[in-house]
Amino acid sequence: MPGTPVDFSHGDVNATAFEPAPGSLEAFVQGVHRGGGQAYTEYRGDASIREKLALNLADFSGKSVSAAEELIITPGTQSALFLAIASTVTAGDKVAIVQPDYFANRKLVEFMGAEMIPVKLDYLNGSANAGLDLNELESAFKKDAKVFLFSNPNNPTGAVYSRSEIGQIAQLADRFGATIIVDQLYSRLLYEGQSYVHLRSTLADEANVVTIMGPSKTESLSGYRLGVAFGSARIVQRMEKLQAIVSLRAPGYCQAVMRTWFSEPAGWLADRINKHQAIRDELLAVFRGIEGVAVRTPQAGS
Amino acid sequence: MPGTPVDFSHGDVNATAFEPAPGSLEAFVQGVHRGGGQAYTEYRGDASIREKLALNLADFSGKSVSAAEELIITPGTQSALFLAIASTVTAGDKVAIVQPDYFANRKLVEFMGAEMIPVKLDYLNGSANAGLDLNELESAFKKDAKVFLFSNPNNPTGAVYSRSEIGQIAQLADRFGATIIVDQLYSRLLYEGQSYVHLRSTLADEANVVTIMGPSKTESLSGYRLGVAFGSARIVQRMEKLQAIVSLRAPGYCQAVMRTWFSEPAGWLADRINKHQAIRDELLAVFRGIEGVAVRTPQAGS
Repeated sequence: MPGTPVDFSHGDVNATAFEPAPGSLEAFVQGVHRGGGQAYTEYRGDASIREKLALNLADFSGKSVSAAEELIITPGTQSALFLAIASTVTAGDKVAIVQPDYFANRKLVEFMGAEMIPVKLDYLNGSANAGLDLNELESAFKKDAKVFLFSNPNNPTGAVYSRSEIGQIAQLADRFGATIIVDQLYSRLLYEGQSYVHLRSTLADEANVVTIMGPSKTESLSGYRLGVAFGSARIVQRMEKLQAIVSLRAPGYCQAVMRTWFSEPAGWLADRINKHQAIRDELLAVFRGIEGVAVRTPQAGS
Repeated sequence: MPGTPVDFSHGDVNATAFEPAPGSLEAFVQGVHRGGGQAYTEYRGDASIREKLALNLADFSGKSVSAAEELIITPGTQSALFLAIASTVTAGDKVAIVQPDYFANRKLVEFMGAEMIPVKLDYLNGSANAGLDLNELESAFKKDAKVFLFSNPNNPTGAVYSRSEIGQIAQLADRFGATIIVDQLYSRLLYEGQSYVHLRSTLADEANVVTIMGPSKTESLSGYRLGVAFGSARIVQRMEKLQAIVSLRAPGYCQAVMRTWFSEPAGWLADRINKHQAIRDELLAVFRGIEGVAVRTPQAGS
């Protein structure tokens, strides 16, 4: 291939990125004016903000969330991932990780002194399914994988898991007593006509499942470093104890910006998604113009 | 003793706390207006802000700091402590910890699966020295303590280590090849006439020493969650690699507030310290009025 090679394995956004969602700075300033009470929240985050988020996230994910017990605000989804892994995995444990998936997942497992069991995502075959090799996942659980960590939509491919895949993942984890950590960071950024199944909405018992999200991507609020984890009260409690020694809490003033999340002006989200979709389509046209390069149409994500 | 018992072992600040240092919110807003470049800084923090901080911290601590290699901005000093410990300690290691000291130190050691070796601070005996039992410290190093973690000013007692103590700590650690992590969070909050020796200023070689500070206390900027670690380039590099999976970075917009640190208006710091000193004196009078209660006059801290 002619031209300058570009490494897309890790991308950060530069100064010409999308604007943060409207009202974010105003919400921050209101937080500052609230004073010390906003600076020193509970480690799991300000109670009244958790109340609002619990309602939003229940509505979004199709299953209730207890603001008191099932939700923690973290300094970014990276922190939520770290805390979730560090609360469920210890040295010598085995963790099933999708290949490919978010680049830091493997590093988190390594930091804990745990062992990664790769599970292949055959993303180029098919678009109805994300393409997870469910036999490999079952085999990972048979080899005693204690935790399954995956992103949905898959980061980096933009593949979205089907209802059938989500159901089988949940069933397998339940059968083997494994914990599921599902990183749904891009789950609001679904391209036109794309459906989405929240794993937690399919469960009767969420004791071993935690869902991670945040407003850094679709909403471009990454400068505030905000994320959430919700689901299992047991795991959330462990995460809070760990947050107390890792970072204390998400920055108190920044937490106030969470009041704008899921409360954007009418039409704003659709417009933002359209803009991402235009970029996707432009890039797809470029890649599809290169002979010998196979590309799956991303169904979601940036 | 009559009256209602109060547990002072852990304190947070409430809504009637001191105001944040002047200019902090304005600096934050300027950061937001800088856009994506301020949101997505290097993991160790924005380069131009590190340039400024390196000069401030060199001036303050009496020894040069390389902005490129010897400084990392973290989401709070708690994060700096976590990253410093997690970058220098692994399961089975021994860590020397002062008793009493910051309550989370022990928990950090436990999280790493390491073993704590306590070193007594006899803070009630004497005010010229903090009262560290240097024989116990030597004995800890003889038992293979790989790291010595301590706060100066000591948190919670407000005792300040003397030049002689700092010199002996540095000498012992050097003799045994141990790493020193010194938490100087309260080192700007020195009461009237109090001198202070920065451990790093006494060293020819800082390869095994990292100093931690932040603007959460004296400057009341805790709502922004900001801290720094500086010193050993090797440890700072490990801390940055770990930060990439723990929290990515201190919130980008919040980092902009660091531009106000060590640049407060003339007289502001002295006035803030006087206000803390008045509280100290009021509390000392109360405690000294209770028969059988021994109290050391805090030389620094909140």
